[in-house]
Amino acid sequence: MIDLLEIKDPSFVKKLSMKELKELAHQIRGFLIDNISKTGGHLSSNLGVVEITIAMYYVFDPEHDKFLFDVGHQSYVHKILTGRAKDFTNLRQFGGLSGYIRRAESKYDIWESGHSSTTISAMAGMLLASENKEDKVISLIGDSSIINGVAFEGLNFLGSLKNLAPIIILNDNKMGISKTVGALTKAFSRIRGTRLWRGFKRALNFIFPTFITNCFHQMKRGVKAFIQQDNIFEDLGFDYYGPIKGNDLAACIKALKRVKKNKEPVILHIITQKGKGYAPSESDLKGSYHGVGPFDKITGAPLSIPALNVHSYSDIVTHYLSKKREKENFFVITPAMKAGAKLEEFATLYPKDFYDVGIAEEHAADMAAGIALSHKKVVLLYYSTFSQRAYDEILNDIARQNLPVIIGIDRAGVVGEDGATHQGIYDVAMFGSMPNVMITMPKNAEELVGIFNYAFLHQGPIVIRYPRDNVYVEFDKLNYNHVISPGWEYVLKGKKACVISYGPEINRIQKLIEDHQLNLTLVNARFIRPIDEEILEELLNTYKKIVVIEQVIQRGSLYQDIVTFANQREYNSKIESISFANNVILPHGKISDVLNHYGFSDEDILKKIRVD
Amino acid sequence: MIDLLEIKDPSFVKKLSMKELKELAHQIRGFLIDNISKTGGHLSSNLGVVEITIAMYYVFDPEHDKFLFDVGHQSYVHKILTGRAKDFTNLRQFGGLSGYIRRAESKYDIWESGHSSTTISAMAGMLLASENKEDKVISLIGDSSIINGVAFEGLNFLGSLKNLAPIIILNDNKMGISKTVGALTKAFSRIRGTRLWRGFKRALNFIFPTFITNCFHQMKRGVKAFIQQDNIFEDLGFDYYGPIKGNDLAACIKALKRVKKNKEPVILHIITQKGKGYAPSESDLKGSYHGVGPFDKITGAPLSIPALNVHSYSDIVTHYLSKKREKENFFVITPAMKAGAKLEEFATLYPKDFYDVGIAEEHAADMAAGIALSHKKVVLLYYSTFSQRAYDEILNDIARQNLPVIIGIDRAGVVGEDGATHQGIYDVAMFGSMPNVMITMPKNAEELVGIFNYAFLHQGPIVIRYPRDNVYVEFDKLNYNHVISPGWEYVLKGKKACVISYGPEINRIQKLIEDHQLNLTLVNARFIRPIDEEILEELLNTYKKIVVIEQVIQRGSLYQDIVTFANQREYNSKIESISFANNVILPHGKISDVLNHYGFSDEDILKKIRVD
Repeated sequence: MIDLLEIKDPSFVKKLSMKELKELAHQIRGFLIDNISKTGGHLSSNLGVVEITIAMYYVFDPEHDKFLFDVGHQSYVHKILTGRAKDFTNLRQFGGLSGYIRRAESKYDIWESGHSSTTISAMAGMLLASENKEDKVISLIGDSSIINGVAFEGLNFLGSLKNLAPIIILNDNKMGISKTVGALTKAFSRIRGTRLWRGFKRALNFIFPTFITNCFHQMKRGVKAFIQQDNIFEDLGFDYYGPIKGNDLAACIKALKRVKKNKEPVILHIITQKGKGYAPSESDLKGSYHGVGPFDKITGAPLSIPALNVHSYSDIVTHYLSKKREKENFFVITPAMKAGAKLEEFATLYPKDFYDVGIAEEHAADMAAGIALSHKKVVLLYYSTFSQRAYDEILNDIARQNLPVIIGIDRAGVVGEDGATHQGIYDVAMFGSMPNVMITMPKNAEELVGIFNYAFLHQGPIVIRYPRDNVYVEFDKLNYNHVISPGWEYVLKGKKACVISYGPEINRIQKLIEDHQLNLTLVNARFIRPIDEEILEELLNTYKKIVVIEQVIQRGSLYQDIVTFANQREYNSKIESISFANNVILPHGKISDVLNHYGFSDEDILKKIRVD
Repeated sequence: MIDLLEIKDPSFVKKLSMKELKELAHQIRGFLIDNISKTGGHLSSNLGVVEITIAMYYVFDPEHDKFLFDVGHQSYVHKILTGRAKDFTNLRQFGGLSGYIRRAESKYDIWESGHSSTTISAMAGMLLASENKEDKVISLIGDSSIINGVAFEGLNFLGSLKNLAPIIILNDNKMGISKTVGALTKAFSRIRGTRLWRGFKRALNFIFPTFITNCFHQMKRGVKAFIQQDNIFEDLGFDYYGPIKGNDLAACIKALKRVKKNKEPVILHIITQKGKGYAPSESDLKGSYHGVGPFDKITGAPLSIPALNVHSYSDIVTHYLSKKREKENFFVITPAMKAGAKLEEFATLYPKDFYDVGIAEEHAADMAAGIALSHKKVVLLYYSTFSQRAYDEILNDIARQNLPVIIGIDRAGVVGEDGATHQGIYDVAMFGSMPNVMITMPKNAEELVGIFNYAFLHQGPIVIRYPRDNVYVEFDKLNYNHVISPGWEYVLKGKKACVISYGPEINRIQKLIEDHQLNLTLVNARFIRPIDEEILEELLNTYKKIVVIEQVIQRGSLYQDIVTFANQREYNSKIESISFANNVILPHGKISDVLNHYGFSDEDILKKIRVD
């Protein structure tokens, strides 16, 4: 028995017998279930890669070879083997262990991705820059990530160079985050069915040794093709091994030993079971155990059951869209957010109008543009952080053409436990740099409905942001016909100064002002762009001091627009900002912890807005 | 003989005999060479698609079917057939005919891309939104564009839906803008070699009728595979036809008639000769006739020969890099800009350190990140407008990780004849929204060298912008060791007000101030971000009026940073801006024409900076 908590470095793995390796796998699986049931985290993907990760450490040399974990949410086993088991009690907490790869944590953490599909291009760079061509670079990438555009660009590049030997382990769990889509997925399932043929193919290669096959090249190709068609990876210049059973430790070790010898680009296709070894996650088809909160280890049931009528903003949006769809036709497009953004309800009700296109953010944007150009309404849903990948398409194809696409931006603002690579603090600057894009953020469910209803009437691109947060809302009491027109709203009227904010943050500030009986005006800038010039002029005429509070980076923020307007109209009000420094890298942790540490605590806000 | 200038709409094409169609092709080719030799424009790509475009109008119904031209630079024949021949005298001039698809020009212009590879996703949206599933959507896309990530995402999506019937014409001229790269290109050349086999395959399909092949499905697959391996498009769920001779009108018509009947996704692979029918462009391997200036029709020689020692900024950069490389190792990575950015010199001298990765902007960024993480220096070169496609990778993988990548941004500012889809006016806002990114713009060749030399010492990401412009510079007189450290520079010292600008625009403003003997200070903000707080504080202490002049959109500009700084330090200077309105869509035309019409004429600047 290894004491996982005592692991110093991963060198011990190489010394274990097969029996011991299997015990290690069993132990790690128990450790993961134990710990994640307490802290929450990515369970299923990590249970799926226990054997392949151990095999990587058994076969390769982590002191020289580089392990890249695409996205990185499946790196928990890697973290345990590199001496971080003891930190799992603080997994994804502020100051604790990151749920992704983090270079500051360990020298074995090589590539911080967070966003999918980047490891293939990164490994290309590392291989080109490598002094010692014997050092291997290995990427472990899921079947849902390999369909993204940047992964394809990377494969296309690497497959064309025969002097580098990247090793890509395609971890195919037939699931992706919820379910992978697209033609490639069907191709994977065709490939999965050809295992026997591949064995025969290897036998044939043995029967016809090289000197003969070289003479009869075309004939060999024909015979090979008769047995097994080339698959897409071979088309792209990779040697292809597999599929093998990825939860079979011996099979993983054997296959890795083989691909290690390869002198050309190689893909090892492994089939794993997501959630392997824990009954509730094994049978989970919805992706509930992909990213999970604390749960009861015995039953698998979540420990904290949301209170009655408490819903996430994602929930509210999907509920609104289902309601709206009863009266009006429109399309909903999202890249791989069906589960994460709680869109199952809509998808089930309107399968012909709902397209989860998988991790294909750019495609999603241009498909939405094509729909809008055909004079149909379309709602395009992203997480804030992933919308970054469609910047060019949204700017050039949607915004420049002024197409009426409704862009829902989920997880806007501080994102919480996912941390640095997932923060939703850039999108106001990003959408603000695009022509014609209106940017909004409702403060509660009522406003969300009202702004969405306005968006369906608006003749151009409009962004509706909402945070990763839960609120109390009674769905049957919402007025689904309410329309909120562009402009700001006075929430409180006071004399001493003015506070401007947007989103649910408004409610916290209102409470602070009321609780402390501050004589302040509070304005809800629910339409962030363009600004409400009439109200802003009133405010500048009335207050010497204005404070703008927003969970975004300062550059490209509403605050900067307000300062600019004030300078242009020659107002001398002092305009202050609570926002994030432009160079800040916000870490993981509870949203409240992150806010408290980065200038958004109640005390920070009070200090800034109080006028004596 | 058709009078091309008298064409009202494309319906006449359907009524022509094969002989007349061939005459039409001949005539159009002559028209293109005639006109482009006078105006400049995209010659080679348009000469290559004369036959396929005519065939599209012959076989399909443009009143119901939709033609999408990927990128759109190859749409001249389409423009002629839809009644725009008479406008070619003003091709790409201010107020004249666009060199790309422009919806305002014609109802037959459906999709404005400009940036590559977007038509496949756009057609997906159009097909989903189509009321009449009989209406066809056809995309004409080049072999260099289909390798981009978004095209792959689109193919992967469309190939998985069997109820839509997109028609993709892959125009394979074996060239791309200069030369396509990657594994897929090799796959294309394998496919090209299989024409005879394909004929045999069709015969086999005839011999084995459906009811038999259904019974012996696996056997048929084996036999098919013996004759012809499936190619990557078939892996992706497309029916594949071709390759056919794309400059053979009859072959094009026959093939289009066949694919028109297809009820599932189909790709028609055509082989065309770029520059077909004009000797100088047929033999052009460098891409000189891709985008070309006015030239002598007889000799093919450019009409305006650059004066001695006049170089584009692209030239200066590649020359600098070659010089630098003599003393220091580094990599240069660029997506499909080898010819456009004049990088042949470097590529020839240092083939192992130079990677033109084709149109794969995202891959380029992550590969650069991988190199930088391996402690090697890397220079990543984009056009401003195309860098947009790597926004997420540059932000999340380079900037967030604070990696020392030198990012050269060519064609920054107003781009000229390429027009609306290619303007370089967003990148300051874009890079300004990313953590840790330093942004610079030199005013001349000396500064360019000095800032590049600084960049090689800088320990983080740094952007160096330069415009599409030519300047006089004697290469052998440049000081290649000069290093310019971060900070601003006083160019002129005056009393009445202060002007701040950056880039070569500085030189024009300096001349204006000197010619009109204005008593003004001129500051060169060559380091745009971060701002030089010390000098700025001096300026705010000294001048009541400051004017910031920059060829970017106002949101996210240096001007906004200066106004913000002034407000934070409670200065009341009036700070004015000459920049572009946030919602402006700048059209095509000579750079000077565009500047003059959008607030950057000498008169506009004088009016703004003069203090009486």
